[in-house]
Amino acid sequence: MMIPQVFWLVPIASIVALGMAYYFFTQMMKADEGTPRMKEIALYVRKGAMAYLKQQYKVVGIVFAVLCVLFAFMAYGLNVQNPWVPFAFLTGGFFSGLAGFFGMKTATYASARTANAARESLDAGLKIAFRSGAVMGLTVVGLGLLDIAIWFVVLNHFDADGLISITTTMLTFGMGASTQALFARVGGGIYTKAADVGADIVGKVEADIPEDDPRNPATIADNVGDNVGDVAGMGADLYESYCGSVLSTAALGAAAFGVAGLEIQLKAVIAPMLIAAVGVFLSLLGIFLVRTKEGATMKDLLRSLSVGTNVSAILIAAATFCILYLLDIQNWLGLSFSVIAGLAAGVIIGQATEYYTSHSYKPTQKISEAGQTGAATVIIKGIGTGMISTCIPVITIGVAIMLSYLCANGFDLSMSSESLAHGLYGIGIAAVGMLSTLGITLATDAYGPIADNAGGNAEMSSLGEEVRHRTDALDALGNTTAATGKGFAIGSAALTALALLASYIEEIKIAMTRAGVMMENVKGELISAADANIPDFMNFFQVNLMNPKVIVGAFVGAMAAFLFCGMTMEAVGRAAEKMVQEVRRQFREIAGILEGTGTPDYGRCVEISTRAAQHEMVIPSVLAILIPIIVGCVLGVAGVLGLLVGGLAGGFTLAVFMANAGGAWDNAKKNIEEGAFGGKGSFAHKACIVGDTVGDPFKDTSGPSLNILIKLMSMVSIVMAGLTVAFM
Amino acid sequence: MMIPQVFWLVPIASIVALGMAYYFFTQMMKADEGTPRMKEIALYVRKGAMAYLKQQYKVVGIVFAVLCVLFAFMAYGLNVQNPWVPFAFLTGGFFSGLAGFFGMKTATYASARTANAARESLDAGLKIAFRSGAVMGLTVVGLGLLDIAIWFVVLNHFDADGLISITTTMLTFGMGASTQALFARVGGGIYTKAADVGADIVGKVEADIPEDDPRNPATIADNVGDNVGDVAGMGADLYESYCGSVLSTAALGAAAFGVAGLEIQLKAVIAPMLIAAVGVFLSLLGIFLVRTKEGATMKDLLRSLSVGTNVSAILIAAATFCILYLLDIQNWLGLSFSVIAGLAAGVIIGQATEYYTSHSYKPTQKISEAGQTGAATVIIKGIGTGMISTCIPVITIGVAIMLSYLCANGFDLSMSSESLAHGLYGIGIAAVGMLSTLGITLATDAYGPIADNAGGNAEMSSLGEEVRHRTDALDALGNTTAATGKGFAIGSAALTALALLASYIEEIKIAMTRAGVMMENVKGELISAADANIPDFMNFFQVNLMNPKVIVGAFVGAMAAFLFCGMTMEAVGRAAEKMVQEVRRQFREIAGILEGTGTPDYGRCVEISTRAAQHEMVIPSVLAILIPIIVGCVLGVAGVLGLLVGGLAGGFTLAVFMANAGGAWDNAKKNIEEGAFGGKGSFAHKACIVGDTVGDPFKDTSGPSLNILIKLMSMVSIVMAGLTVAFM
Repeated sequence: MMIPQVFWLVPIASIVALGMAYYFFTQMMKADEGTPRMKEIALYVRKGAMAYLKQQYKVVGIVFAVLCVLFAFMAYGLNVQNPWVPFAFLTGGFFSGLAGFFGMKTATYASARTANAARESLDAGLKIAFRSGAVMGLTVVGLGLLDIAIWFVVLNHFDADGLISITTTMLTFGMGASTQALFARVGGGIYTKAADVGADIVGKVEADIPEDDPRNPATIADNVGDNVGDVAGMGADLYESYCGSVLSTAALGAAAFGVAGLEIQLKAVIAPMLIAAVGVFLSLLGIFLVRTKEGATMKDLLRSLSVGTNVSAILIAAATFCILYLLDIQNWLGLSFSVIAGLAAGVIIGQATEYYTSHSYKPTQKISEAGQTGAATVIIKGIGTGMISTCIPVITIGVAIMLSYLCANGFDLSMSSESLAHGLYGIGIAAVGMLSTLGITLATDAYGPIADNAGGNAEMSSLGEEVRHRTDALDALGNTTAATGKGFAIGSAALTALALLASYIEEIKIAMTRAGVMMENVKGELISAADANIPDFMNFFQVNLMNPKVIVGAFVGAMAAFLFCGMTMEAVGRAAEKMVQEVRRQFREIAGILEGTGTPDYGRCVEISTRAAQHEMVIPSVLAILIPIIVGCVLGVAGVLGLLVGGLAGGFTLAVFMANAGGAWDNAKKNIEEGAFGGKGSFAHKACIVGDTVGDPFKDTSGPSLNILIKLMSMVSIVMAGLTVAFM
Repeated sequence: MMIPQVFWLVPIASIVALGMAYYFFTQMMKADEGTPRMKEIALYVRKGAMAYLKQQYKVVGIVFAVLCVLFAFMAYGLNVQNPWVPFAFLTGGFFSGLAGFFGMKTATYASARTANAARESLDAGLKIAFRSGAVMGLTVVGLGLLDIAIWFVVLNHFDADGLISITTTMLTFGMGASTQALFARVGGGIYTKAADVGADIVGKVEADIPEDDPRNPATIADNVGDNVGDVAGMGADLYESYCGSVLSTAALGAAAFGVAGLEIQLKAVIAPMLIAAVGVFLSLLGIFLVRTKEGATMKDLLRSLSVGTNVSAILIAAATFCILYLLDIQNWLGLSFSVIAGLAAGVIIGQATEYYTSHSYKPTQKISEAGQTGAATVIIKGIGTGMISTCIPVITIGVAIMLSYLCANGFDLSMSSESLAHGLYGIGIAAVGMLSTLGITLATDAYGPIADNAGGNAEMSSLGEEVRHRTDALDALGNTTAATGKGFAIGSAALTALALLASYIEEIKIAMTRAGVMMENVKGELISAADANIPDFMNFFQVNLMNPKVIVGAFVGAMAAFLFCGMTMEAVGRAAEKMVQEVRRQFREIAGILEGTGTPDYGRCVEISTRAAQHEMVIPSVLAILIPIIVGCVLGVAGVLGLLVGGLAGGFTLAVFMANAGGAWDNAKKNIEEGAFGGKGSFAHKACIVGDTVGDPFKDTSGPSLNILIKLMSMVSIVMAGLTVAFM
């Protein structure tokens, strides 16, 4: 069919994003990397990180090869799947990996340069770190839009089955992205936390040496970990979120506006892509707004960062009204308000996250205070705080779901097929709105680990107290602005997962139509699946809350989230123990290491982390793919929908709990380090270090992986719909 | 209507149970309480426990008064509720409180006597402790059956609306029991863990004095806590489970067999009561089987206990076949197999619990091992183990749900109203089977805290190493046999909660009929709610998994479980901190306390625990009542069903996680105390004490309360159905 001209804004935005990313990269590379010692350390970290990534991509490659063969067999052998699926799946994984790779490459080049610039001034440090973060942000959105644009054009050219088929096929590249992202998050998360926990336990608690001290053998591994976990992992994660929200909304648009004629349907499909494309330009605007004068204070820096992100967010809200109005989409005003509901939810969740995890507020201060009575009360309080902190995000998301649904369908509660479809499209559009300025929000997020690594480099190169202070300030700054970004990421994940539920139903209908299976509607007449409305579908598949299959599915969904977290927690625990034993061994066996005369064997620690991550990431990740397939074959469509709802509700809550408990422990420790309750080295400090250490895998391994897990389970169900129908 | 003669077995069983409980009580009271010092300590504990219970019942009394006025207003003012509700609600609360009170009275009299008997021999100690536990078990089932029998007779006499109305009205006394149980579990749990955590942190970790040492000012509070938390709290909890399973199954029976004529319907209603009544006699048989010869070894004791519980369990399975056959209930054979499925699930869950929490197996041993690298890895491993341990119970429950459902309806997957109703009845009957031998399983459970307290008494009375060893052995014995009991309790809670979902739908229909509201069936015809089948109901109320109200409800349900746990964890944390500070203050200010020459101020610590429990139990408990009411008013029937399913799936998983993580930490510590990884006082021991302390509120406050929370939310929804319909 004819693609409207305005669509070409999407590839243009993609190319602009990638071009600007390249520009920022070359700018950064021109800066000086500092002293020979600084260069040496940066090289260590870069080599370790690249070596790890190569290893990881090998494992992921094998998984992708297996899945590709399976999909090819399903498509060409069993004929239960669209023939484009294997290829789309591959590109999703490839581009997701590429986004992580570029981000990490940039980060490993930027850290020494940031440290070197920080020798000069805070401002210079900020500029390098933030622009390097922007490389990551722009690469993610650029590659995402590129993949979307290419597949949309290709499928439009070859696929004659219409937009519903095209958009659901495109979701399989979302599955590729999710699969790669899960491996990246889990592998990177295990890597970084094994090193971090190990380094902290022996270094800070036992040997009483500071963070990033070159005498600590796990220090290089720790810094490598920041790159493979926080940078490459996060890049892959947000690539997945970004594409997932756009693709699922496009699929919902195709389903909702199918009856309104091809032209309108096409507009509904490209609307989320256009919002994302405009978001790229607004992100760029925001990035250029982040600039500080010579001699700027911390407050100025913070304001500067906030101005950048806030201006982008406000402008995207305004732009959404224009885009939807100009596209002349039915109920454009209501849909725009759906986006406002989503953005407001993101801001509120971000604020709540800030409240529960920043040591400017009571909950985290109380955790520090509990340090005075020991590690046990710190843990109890942290878990309590994390659990309580789920309340506001869940209620906010609940309200946002209802509002974006109702705004989009004109406050129609009838649950007629049309009203439902339009409402769900509204929920999807809200998620797209929340992620459309990812270019800048990811920049503020990604520059945190760069500043952190710069600090590590400064410490190991003995650049002195002041430089370390500056990099710490940059890091802290990032934490504050990142809260809103995190709110958007969590909120949009929940909305996207919900949107994917609807795509699952569409895909089941497509699979049934493909297989020529007829179904009974509620009146008992035999109809084609394509003609079934929601009550027909739900009735035919017995998807109601009294069906034991649905209940059992919901149980398994909630359990899957716990099982997954448990496995990743255990993996970190096991690897950290090995790391602790290795560091203790080196302290014992290598003479003069603590006096600074002997050189620690950094390579051994890097190897332990690499091997642990490789070894431990496979089972939980593969399980996430297998569970929905097994449930689909055993419990059918009703069981899968139960699984996805149980996984969404249980997993989302668990994710918020783990992220916030981890964040609160981290800052409770920082609060003490800034002098509260006895300050550094006090009894309370030791207790809070235990809390921080426990919190590490909470907030950086298990918690963030859950968002991907929830969506991956939906994506797998969608892609495997053909198999479920065949087993029916 | 005519009540069949066989029904009178129920009140007879009740009277026999209560009579035997009284007999065991008087037997126990005849034993000698030991030295004056032992009597003195027992008196301290008894007084503290009774004073606390009085306080607690005052607070609970106020809540009951408020709720009663509300129900009376709904029944007599708004006419949206059955007029019997306020009274039934009150008796449920009253009897639940009574069960806790009697159990605790017995326990506080028994502990010194057990210690004194243990001076003589292990066997003598076992006999007193176990028979005292049996008082509790028999009181709970006796009072439960009494309440059930009385209300059944009364309502049969006065209520002309038929068995569906009678049985759902009786569920309100279940709500009374659940409400009281939640307060008892939460209040008692906070009390006991505040004291325990406080005593452990200062005593074991800082001052290096053993458990229950009389020099520790928190020691009496700790022992009082065992009674109010583990005995009174557990009694109220299991009273609630026991009645809940019988009542919800009776309600399902009335609904499932309504079309088959009054006689058959009546049989289906009394079948669960009869199974429970026969269970009483089999429990008594089991209790008498628990006897040991003079000079019995630990192994003999264990075998003796196992014989008692296993014989009861096997006989109840056989008896169920007979009861259902003699009642001539349709598909009696299938229903009996449902019970077998339930019992098998209980055994498997119990075994899995044992595997993940006993230090005879790898998972807990690995936690001990992690102690060598410090407290942080102990916590990480424990949380990981707890999360992974949710897998087997959830899958087992899933299989049990499907099997008991399918056995009961002749493997009919059609989801027709009839097949669904019969299947759900099977699920209910399975839960009743699991709890029917509660008389003996609770005896093996309740004697643990009695032995624990006897140990406390022995320690504080300086009875010497050997006596303490014997009471420890008794305690350890209890832990092993209790695993199966716990499996039955957890499993039956999930099945009962599922059965309550169905009762909710019935109650909504009754409320609609009462209000004269008509509804549309799937064909669009206007029918009376009473005539609606499941697809009609689900369609009319839009209860399907694409309805955002259902999804939002599920989110809130999962969040409610986390919020509730978070609040109770924080409560324990806060109270424990106060306790630690008080104990430290006494060590500092009271001269000679650690040398044993000064007397600690036990009263202050008892007061801190009492006040904290009073103060902290109200908000979480009231929240559990308010959440379903609010969701019902805002999101309607669809939202409530989402809430209950989300709460069930999320809450059950969370409960298993918390209980098992706590149990594993406890035994990881015991493992070290038995000599592993350096033994008592080693680095690993200190690390594992932190784990045990964190685990205390996990396994004794937050975790066990969740089972009640899940059912209470269902009960509240059922009782408030009239309000939800009025808001429609």
